Amino acid sequence: MNDVARIAGVSRGSVSNYINGQKTRPDTQIKIEKAIKALNYVPNATARALKTSRSNYVIFIIPTVNTPFFSELSYHVQLELKKFGYKMILCNSNSEPTEELEYIQMANTQKVAGIITMSYADVADLVSPNIALVSIEKKVSDNFPMVISDNYQGGKLAAQKLHDSGAKHLLFASKSPIKDISSVRQQGFVDYCTENNLTYDTFLSRDIPNFIDDFRDFILENKSDHAFKYDGVFSDSDEYANAFWHILLQYDINVPADVQIIGFDAARTYQRQPTFLSAIRQPIEKIASEAVTRLLLQLPHPEQHSQKNSVTVLPVTFQQGVTTKTDRH
Amino acid sequence: MNDVARIAGVSRGSVSNYINGQKTRPDTQIKIEKAIKALNYVPNATARALKTSRSNYVIFIIPTVNTPFFSELSYHVQLELKKFGYKMILCNSNSEPTEELEYIQMANTQKVAGIITMSYADVADLVSPNIALVSIEKKVSDNFPMVISDNYQGGKLAAQKLHDSGAKHLLFASKSPIKDISSVRQQGFVDYCTENNLTYDTFLSRDIPNFIDDFRDFILENKSDHAFKYDGVFSDSDEYANAFWHILLQYDINVPADVQIIGFDAARTYQRQPTFLSAIRQPIEKIASEAVTRLLLQLPHPEQHSQKNSVTVLPVTFQQGVTTKTDRH
Repeated sequence: MNDVARIAGVSRGSVSNYINGQKTRPDTQIKIEKAIKALNYVPNATARALKTSRSNYVIFIIPTVNTPFFSELSYHVQLELKKFGYKMILCNSNSEPTEELEYIQMANTQKVAGIITMSYADVADLVSPNIALVSIEKKVSDNFPMVISDNYQGGKLAAQKLHDSGAKHLLFASKSPIKDISSVRQQGFVDYCTENNLTYDTFLSRDIPNFIDDFRDFILENKSDHAFKYDGVFSDSDEYANAFWHILLQYDINVPADVQIIGFDAARTYQRQPTFLSAIRQPIEKIASEAVTRLLLQLPHPEQHSQKNSVTVLPVTFQQGVTTKTDRH
Repeated sequence: MNDVARIAGVSRGSVSNYINGQKTRPDTQIKIEKAIKALNYVPNATARALKTSRSNYVIFIIPTVNTPFFSELSYHVQLELKKFGYKMILCNSNSEPTEELEYIQMANTQKVAGIITMSYADVADLVSPNIALVSIEKKVSDNFPMVISDNYQGGKLAAQKLHDSGAKHLLFASKSPIKDISSVRQQGFVDYCTENNLTYDTFLSRDIPNFIDDFRDFILENKSDHAFKYDGVFSDSDEYANAFWHILLQYDINVPADVQIIGFDAARTYQRQPTFLSAIRQPIEKIASEAVTRLLLQLPHPEQHSQKNSVTVLPVTFQQGVTTKTDRH
């Protein structure tokens, strides 16, 4: 707090007032906010809780913790919040708007510190602009900051990796409907192909629980003996890419010698081992730390929209697994 | 509450007093507890919170949410708690005793409703017997109930499945040190082999982060061309079994035609699709619901040890994936 006061050129008392949500002169406020950003300073939860009426619980809303991506993200969000003295209340919404609404109402009535959400439902109208909130991957409204991976660049990178390692007959495989980040990932893939005169096909399964059956049918229609029509497959999720891979395995099609596969997320199924699937890696630790930082920066004055509306786009990387060729091959 | 009163043969007021932790005559109390158990009755969180000083937060301590087993379990624990109006505070302890102690202290000072723990650290001395607590898989002390899968039967079942589907050269593969539930699973496997005059070998990797390298070395030492010395592998975790499978794949050894593999947990990596690995399935939904029920039953009188010391052993099943033979083969 002393550093913030020094850099802002204001008194320590002004910084304290600001952090605890008390009225501050507009010019002082701007100076303090600049200093806070410059220092990447976040106030300690316990000190705040003593002076404000809000608890040090943060609600984290996700569709379900039961996927590698969400569980790895939850893990890092909890540890990141803990660094600053906050606890994470985990809420699985199952993408049900009624569930998400319920959690948001709970946030209001129980005076939690704030919300981090990967809500897939449209909840913009339900969220009071007075609450501190950060969304990941999908914008809630212009009132709140968002943290997102560079999905477009990820799609491009996948096409480039397949191209560089010799694939000539590319396939984009996913589940319909293609929307939101999926369509952005697809667009990156398509643009790379177009720019490099590569041909590609698209296969979308139906939107049914047993969508894997559609993958299987598609593979059977496009294989003869142990050969498959495509030698490079990109899917916009690890889940679909893994499913594709394991079906090819069952028909004795050689991965990666004959077909290379790249997924998206590269989330760790187990903490201690890398994924076997080659995939575009979302920077999960960085997403967690950015989301928490953006939330904590709002806490002094959650009602001030000017601090809120920002989009942080984080770069992705390629993670080599065993489903694409390396120099060894 | 009316049903409890009727079955117990006491007044509704006595039941209400009991549930809200007020003094009750010993004989009345025994009648009410019997009726509660008979009805599987659990009091509603909101009604309780109005009358007691404790919150409706329940702390769930796990080593890390970032494995399929723990994330699937967390998912079900949260939904189960929500049914009764409780919220789940998720705590990743990374198996650090200091972390677990911190969460337990937080439970005491912040007056949470209770704790569900899969603690791997020895925290018996740190937990006040006055708090409501249920452990999963590992006993905290004789003061608290535990819910656990039938690990011994799971080991037996794995050996039996490999035997029934024609495997003759069995291997138990795991990571050292073998202790706690791992040794129980191993013992079940060994006992089945002994009872049925089957020979088996045991391979344990070193206890290092790159334990997979040891698996790889072992496989290389025991293969010639595309043949592996063993045709049936059981591992006491999905993680090790998956690692084993994927290394065999990389050396073009045919699974399940030439080597069958069975893991343990059969946790779902993705909610919408079954696992590809054949494995002994822990009844995860049932573990969650039993743990929550056992916790809620303690809430009226968490200080009464007599209600606490119980062990619930849940049966396991075999889940067919693509790594063991079916009738199709």
